Amino acid sequence: MMTESLDTGWFTEVFDSHGSAFSLKVREKLWDVTSAYQHLEVYATETYGNLMVLDGCVMLSDRDNFLYHEMIAHPALFAHAAPKRVVIIGGGDCGTLREVLKHPGVEHVTLIDIDEEVTKAAERFFPALTESNDDPRAELKFADGVKWVDEADDESVDVMIIDSTDPVGPAEGLFKTDFLKRCHRLLRQGGVMVQQSESPLYHSGSIIRELRRDMRAAGFESVATLPFPQPVYPSGWWSVTLAGKGVDVKSFREADAAASDMTLDYYTAEAHRGALALPPFMRRAFEE
Amino acid sequence: MMTESLDTGWFTEVFDSHGSAFSLKVREKLWDVTSAYQHLEVYATETYGNLMVLDGCVMLSDRDNFLYHEMIAHPALFAHAAPKRVVIIGGGDCGTLREVLKHPGVEHVTLIDIDEEVTKAAERFFPALTESNDDPRAELKFADGVKWVDEADDESVDVMIIDSTDPVGPAEGLFKTDFLKRCHRLLRQGGVMVQQSESPLYHSGSIIRELRRDMRAAGFESVATLPFPQPVYPSGWWSVTLAGKGVDVKSFREADAAASDMTLDYYTAEAHRGALALPPFMRRAFEE
Repeated sequence: MMTESLDTGWFTEVFDSHGSAFSLKVREKLWDVTSAYQHLEVYATETYGNLMVLDGCVMLSDRDNFLYHEMIAHPALFAHAAPKRVVIIGGGDCGTLREVLKHPGVEHVTLIDIDEEVTKAAERFFPALTESNDDPRAELKFADGVKWVDEADDESVDVMIIDSTDPVGPAEGLFKTDFLKRCHRLLRQGGVMVQQSESPLYHSGSIIRELRRDMRAAGFESVATLPFPQPVYPSGWWSVTLAGKGVDVKSFREADAAASDMTLDYYTAEAHRGALALPPFMRRAFEE
Repeated sequence: MMTESLDTGWFTEVFDSHGSAFSLKVREKLWDVTSAYQHLEVYATETYGNLMVLDGCVMLSDRDNFLYHEMIAHPALFAHAAPKRVVIIGGGDCGTLREVLKHPGVEHVTLIDIDEEVTKAAERFFPALTESNDDPRAELKFADGVKWVDEADDESVDVMIIDSTDPVGPAEGLFKTDFLKRCHRLLRQGGVMVQQSESPLYHSGSIIRELRRDMRAAGFESVATLPFPQPVYPSGWWSVTLAGKGVDVKSFREADAAASDMTLDYYTAEAHRGALALPPFMRRAFEE
């Protein structure tokens, strides 16, 4: 069935519950550390640049992280009328932070990741992602995001970005209705939250549908799921889900997005518009 | 590095030149035949339904073939003002044929695949794909597509769909400029051709760019590459490239597409519009 064994010389992530697996050919392991929260590895791959792995799950590669980072940042920021204060929960690799800071109107970004080892590894092995960390508008905290959100002032944030791992392990609490309610409380009127929401192919009828329902239950009036390609994640297809507090996240500042002079690799106003129109199979899964 | 070996119980396709691999868990092999042209296998997978493999390369799965088949058929048909006569070269699994026949204005579709074994396997193991084969507008021929195109009447076709395997092996001739010139000759004014054109991530600066250049060299005035997700193909991200003879394939019958009552899983007018706006990294790769 195979001409080549993947047992040596490859990093493989098996997606057990979905019967699929994705492998990258590796040159060497560059880093291996077990923090208080998780097992972090970095590999040098043959063709995807460096690869970060947390608890055996691929987090990002040099080659394709632009897709995820642009799509978790820009749709939410352009869905807000004038975002000034942004909070990122998770996102310790700082790729999302870099994208947020490309918006000149943003005045302050607080990033709260529970695990400083992720940021240390990013600084060392993914320096392009951390290149904006010295921006005076950026504030990095290494703390429990759930607790931070619990203690933050009401109506103090314009955009909340939940840039988490899968809804198991350290990030489990970030997918709970209680947490979504606290996010809602933190947002000002017109505020937008966005959360990574897994694979359209694998999770439209489960995790994504439940997250959308939980966001509405938490008080958000509008919800929008945007799919986008992501080769290193299960099924090669991923999504973010936006929720609006007194704002319709199905619309966005399309003219601003089109006129922007940010240097981007994937996001365009047209891609945003296209992603907002869900594939019919997803629409049907959400309505069931 | 791995907790589970993929050597047994999985079908794996290794994409050697791209240092990546994709695997699906299989229950059993259902079919194994070596035709005059290629080695054809069908597997029953755990989670993707049946899987067709040609010469070791994944062709399609029950679960995700809707993406490819909808995106190779509908953008080309909606880019044409009123397609009546359609030719499909390759496409022996008949999934593209089924999509084309959903267009009520289409009067005749000729499918020419070199290998009847593909259609026989589709009839047996992918019956949903061949459900429209008895449509009186459909004509199936098992013959050399290059030769057929060479002998067909000039200006006799509205839409040509090149639904081929990769540009190596039996399909190599379908990626040559001579073949594109013959396609151009066959098309009436206002005609559209479309060809599957590999991975945006892996091939934007090579196969796709060359195909676009070759299409223009063959006389087509307009060219458009549309990316879409495709989990079972290398990188999980794929593309089709359209070319127009006296028609701009960057526009399409958007109102017709939006008003259509076809039952589809992926294609929408908005997805078509979104795909036409290339990600900036692809635009840059094409301009180099």
